[in-house]
Amino acid sequence: MTESPMIGIIMGSDSDFPVIEPALNILDEFCVKYEVIVSSAHRTPERTEKYTRSAADRGIKVIIAAAGGAAHLPGVVAAMTNLPVIGLPIRSKSFNGLDSLLSIVEMPKGVPVATVGVDNSSNAILLALRILATNNKDLYEKMTTYRSKMEDAVITRDNHIQEQIKKRK
Amino acid sequence: MTESPMIGIIMGSDSDFPVIEPALNILDEFCVKYEVIVSSAHRTPERTEKYTRSAADRGIKVIIAAAGGAAHLPGVVAAMTNLPVIGLPIRSKSFNGLDSLLSIVEMPKGVPVATVGVDNSSNAILLALRILATNNKDLYEKMTTYRSKMEDAVITRDNHIQEQIKKRK
Amino acid sequence: MTESPMIGIIMGSDSDFPVIEPALNILDEFCVKYEVIVSSAHRTPERTEKYTRSAADRGIKVIIAAAGGAAHLPGVVAAMTNLPVIGLPIRSKSFNGLDSLLSIVEMPKGVPVATVGVDNSSNAILLALRILATNNKDLYEKMTTYRSKMEDAVITRDNHIQEQIKKRK
Amino acid sequence: MTESPMIGIIMGSDSDFPVIEPALNILDEFCVKYEVIVSSAHRTPERTEKYTRSAADRGIKVIIAAAGGAAHLPGVVAAMTNLPVIGLPIRSKSFNGLDSLLSIVEMPKGVPVATVGVDNSSNAILLALRILATNNKDLYEKMTTYRSKMEDAVITRDNHIQEQIKKRK
Amino acid sequence: MTESPMIGIIMGSDSDFPVIEPALNILDEFCVKYEVIVSSAHRTPERTEKYTRSAADRGIKVIIAAAGGAAHLPGVVAAMTNLPVIGLPIRSKSFNGLDSLLSIVEMPKGVPVATVGVDNSSNAILLALRILATNNKDLYEKMTTYRSKMEDAVITRDNHIQEQIKKRK
Amino acid sequence: MTESPMIGIIMGSDSDFPVIEPALNILDEFCVKYEVIVSSAHRTPERTEKYTRSAADRGIKVIIAAAGGAAHLPGVVAAMTNLPVIGLPIRSKSFNGLDSLLSIVEMPKGVPVATVGVDNSSNAILLALRILATNNKDLYEKMTTYRSKMEDAVITRDNHIQEQIKKRK
Amino acid sequence: MTESPMIGIIMGSDSDFPVIEPALNILDEFCVKYEVIVSSAHRTPERTEKYTRSAADRGIKVIIAAAGGAAHLPGVVAAMTNLPVIGLPIRSKSFNGLDSLLSIVEMPKGVPVATVGVDNSSNAILLALRILATNNKDLYEKMTTYRSKMEDAVITRDNHIQEQIKKRK
Amino acid sequence: MTESPMIGIIMGSDSDFPVIEPALNILDEFCVKYEVIVSSAHRTPERTEKYTRSAADRGIKVIIAAAGGAAHLPGVVAAMTNLPVIGLPIRSKSFNGLDSLLSIVEMPKGVPVATVGVDNSSNAILLALRILATNNKDLYEKMTTYRSKMEDAVITRDNHIQEQIKKRK
Repeated sequence: MTESPMIGIIMGSDSDFPVIEPALNILDEFCVKYEVIVSSAHRTPERTEKYTRSAADRGIKVIIAAAGGAAHLPGVVAAMTNLPVIGLPIRSKSFNGLDSLLSIVEMPKGVPVATVGVDNSSNAILLALRILATNNKDLYEKMTTYRSKMEDAVITRDNHIQEQIKKRK
Repeated sequence: MTESPMIGIIMGSDSDFPVIEPALNILDEFCVKYEVIVSSAHRTPERTEKYTRSAADRGIKVIIAAAGGAAHLPGVVAAMTNLPVIGLPIRSKSFNGLDSLLSIVEMPKGVPVATVGVDNSSNAILLALRILATNNKDLYEKMTTYRSKMEDAVITRDNHIQEQIKKRK
Repeated sequence: MTESPMIGIIMGSDSDFPVIEPALNILDEFCVKYEVIVSSAHRTPERTEKYTRSAADRGIKVIIAAAGGAAHLPGVVAAMTNLPVIGLPIRSKSFNGLDSLLSIVEMPKGVPVATVGVDNSSNAILLALRILATNNKDLYEKMTTYRSKMEDAVITRDNHIQEQIKKRK
Repeated sequence: MTESPMIGIIMGSDSDFPVIEPALNILDEFCVKYEVIVSSAHRTPERTEKYTRSAADRGIKVIIAAAGGAAHLPGVVAAMTNLPVIGLPIRSKSFNGLDSLLSIVEMPKGVPVATVGVDNSSNAILLALRILATNNKDLYEKMTTYRSKMEDAVITRDNHIQEQIKKRK
Repeated sequence: MTESPMIGIIMGSDSDFPVIEPALNILDEFCVKYEVIVSSAHRTPERTEKYTRSAADRGIKVIIAAAGGAAHLPGVVAAMTNLPVIGLPIRSKSFNGLDSLLSIVEMPKGVPVATVGVDNSSNAILLALRILATNNKDLYEKMTTYRSKMEDAVITRDNHIQEQIKKRK
Repeated sequence: MTESPMIGIIMGSDSDFPVIEPALNILDEFCVKYEVIVSSAHRTPERTEKYTRSAADRGIKVIIAAAGGAAHLPGVVAAMTNLPVIGLPIRSKSFNGLDSLLSIVEMPKGVPVATVGVDNSSNAILLALRILATNNKDLYEKMTTYRSKMEDAVITRDNHIQEQIKKRK
Repeated sequence: MTESPMIGIIMGSDSDFPVIEPALNILDEFCVKYEVIVSSAHRTPERTEKYTRSAADRGIKVIIAAAGGAAHLPGVVAAMTNLPVIGLPIRSKSFNGLDSLLSIVEMPKGVPVATVGVDNSSNAILLALRILATNNKDLYEKMTTYRSKMEDAVITRDNHIQEQIKKRK
Repeated sequence: MTESPMIGIIMGSDSDFPVIEPALNILDEFCVKYEVIVSSAHRTPERTEKYTRSAADRGIKVIIAAAGGAAHLPGVVAAMTNLPVIGLPIRSKSFNGLDSLLSIVEMPKGVPVATVGVDNSSNAILLALRILATNNKDLYEKMTTYRSKMEDAVITRDNHIQEQIKKRK
């Protein structure tokens, strides 16, 4: 387990947490410390700024920002740090996440947000780990193992399907 | 002409100005002073904050914020003032303004942005004037005159069409 | 509490009321009187016209118009008054509110509708209050308090999340 | 040629006329009289109402209403008459006519608008003629002839293509 | 009640019937006879052709064609008759009726389909009645009555809302 | 060169030919005979039926049907033959081909259309060739060659880019 | 029943199987052997490659590839074989299958995928059978029978509807 | 200037190069070496695999993959490496880049692609630099300088606008 958190996860609303929580297991599996904070771009702009501006100094290497609807949080965070910021669009009611996705990914030139799929918290975290792994052999090898396990899981599922197919015949 | 500016117009990029400029004539026609500033939510977040937080004290009554793509500016501005904020979505290349519109209008509960149509700077300004007119009889009457002129313009155009129709027969 | 209603809320169908009702609490909290009326742009055009044309004289300062689908009500109302009209798009079955949003926001030059997010009745009402507050110090201060409470609520929710995070470790 | 106009064509803006004009030839070909008027649902609501309410009494049998963007005109007209109203969505800049189409076709239960394709003025007029033909043998036969000519035109075009194909070989 | 059916309703699948059935009450209310047939553009093309080509001779004045997905039925029917054809798009699973709508409304020049809103069977039938009423005084007056009842229903619903508002205060 | 045409190409309008023509070179390269016909699902339904029902007997193995807008032709053709039908959506003005694509691909269960990308005539023809190649060794080998040439073309283009990169340095 | 499998069905995830399974009955009805495999373009790229490259040699004539979201599997498979590849888009949560459809159908020139409707496994399989039938008289006749049964089923359903209509009267 | 390339840029087609080239200046400004390669996921799958699998060993830390339409390249690359992969969607003709964006961002769980806006090559490169900067103080400081210059550029543009405003008055 790393000493201090290397990944900061900020979300615009606590209602985003159920989307994020299951993916925290991946961080535990990789033994990477993280911190989680609720702070809104619109309801608590100062809190968001304070958190973001201090992140690099506290040892954070990557920030994951989750938001839905007019999802400004990832872009607002990216505007106030040099760290790579991963944007996680949360599904919205009216536009099913299209608004969240476009609000996050279509940033102006100069301030990038690394966007992953709608509600895809696992990929947000695996992307953060890939970034950390560019400079951490241990994490790099764990990523190889992780991907290898994914492969095995596909085989297991295939076996299950083959049994169902046999029963048909 | 009002003494000091009552309407503040902020745009994320100077490339938005050609969309806004023609509509400034309406403000001249209504003799309402305004100020225009270029400031980006992402490239100059501090400048944007400073402008917004001081607006009400300087006598500004309504802010119009124009932006395109992941158009965060209107929402970011609305998060730092009690003034009504009008969001003007600027047409974007890839999504033709759908991204701009959704990024502006789908704000979270608590922080409203009064959104007008894509590139519709005239309506942004007329909405600002309607807001000022709620407490200004002179502007209210000018709005009546303005709408009356619009009606006359429709009749003039209809006459032109009737002539074209006659030529057909 | 204001003497007579300052905000008029018109909806195209009584089925829109469940969307609007929870947000009326905000008006009670701000002690601002309002009136609510069901009137359709298409099923009762005369009633809609009569209501709208008399609104300003009865002391109404802002009209909120809610409608779904081919949502003409806000635009039709805005065409018959000088007052600022706030359009509240109601989610529709087939297009999830995209039709409602575009029918309301894409008004022709000359007749603006201040559009808020789909089903976002809170923002419709908070926008109306921001407009009233441009000329009402008491409401302006209440808005500051309201926004401050929103900030506190975020902190409370963050505390709750921190506890959940601790349990994981 | 019919004695008095049987088809009323109303458009929200004279800028819609270039879309409509080429299709007027079809009416000339069928010898059906028509009238054209420019009147906006939003800029001249009273004029629109006056025109619509008097249409049936003046002998109009079908109204074609053309509009773009938040295209309220066809629905507003349909709300004030018993006549069948054909809605012709005009292509818009930002949403390419999707806004026009949805604003016209997604009318609430009770007030139908017979919608045709975006900018498809020919089909608006041919639909009006099919409606008139339900009670007019002469028009019914002319429609048969018209469709037969369309068939011939396809054959002619096919011949042209066959020649191009031959040259390839 | 009319002697023989004047309105033919054709649907691509019997699964469309639950959408159509409630609106048949309107036809009963207007005492207009109709016929209903299940016939697919793709699964029974010959049956569809036979039905359509014989419709006018059997006294049918208007055809309503309902279909979902790649909804070809209304267009295919319109290609084989001079009668006005009303297209009723049925909501689909994957595209929520957008595919149905576009497949029906975006017909090529020459073959119009009078399209109504997705799943809006009431408007399909009311449009058919407006068409019949262009040449039937009795139906024209019934339409006036029908619209008048709609107005009354709005007032009734408004009363209900006013009571709910009173309870809040 | 095959004796008689094995691929039938039907298009709804001669205006689709410029999209199709460049891809005919591929058929020449593979020495596969084809026939081209203009016939509309809506303007010439009988011609379309006659062509389709006779295709298999004349030795046609695959039909390519091109259409835009409410693109019914591929589905209508597929409904009247056992042959595999490839649908080629042609870009439309208002919906940029989304209408064409959905009208072609979202066929009801039972009548499949093998849909390729909008305006992608090359892929329509290469798909037809892959189908023919399932039972034709010569074509199968030519396909291998064709794909190999595509690989070489990528290398050639890469060389060109490498030169441009070198000039930068 | 054919000796060895002629149709290979590959799916990106075992969660796609419930969509595919009901359609396997059609293959049983036509007595055509098939094989099913779970293999992901992203999680098991080597397995996917190995399966695809060996398919033709093992006697497979057509491959059906099912995938959802960023659905790369059909295109990746088509890139490594000369066989016709049918792409079956699986409905996704956020974009309801639009992402799946576009990811499959909009292939670059040179590598076609025969795309069917979202979740339309029946059509994927019927298309595969039509392709096999181009060179198999027995399958061709079975397809005629299959389509004839579909016609009968429509009549049966129509009878059911006629009874419901009678009860109304 | 770094010794060997740290950023690998792969594009599906040389036609993507004009989008990428202007942003290469940023890498020159930061003195970071890069390599560029044309290789398609579909036309040269083996070349793509070979390039990707060897990237980490050759010292590449981040891969940028650009593609349009059914844009599989970024996902296919991400499936064969542990490195962070940045996906750059290229605008397409028919869907204006929506297809490119969804094909890249909506990756399945387990294989993330860091997606930036359509055609936004600058942000792809700035994101790569932010990733490198997590472990490189020099780059981190250069990023601070870069962002500071962006701020200055906004002020310069604002001055220009102020002059235009003055001329109006």
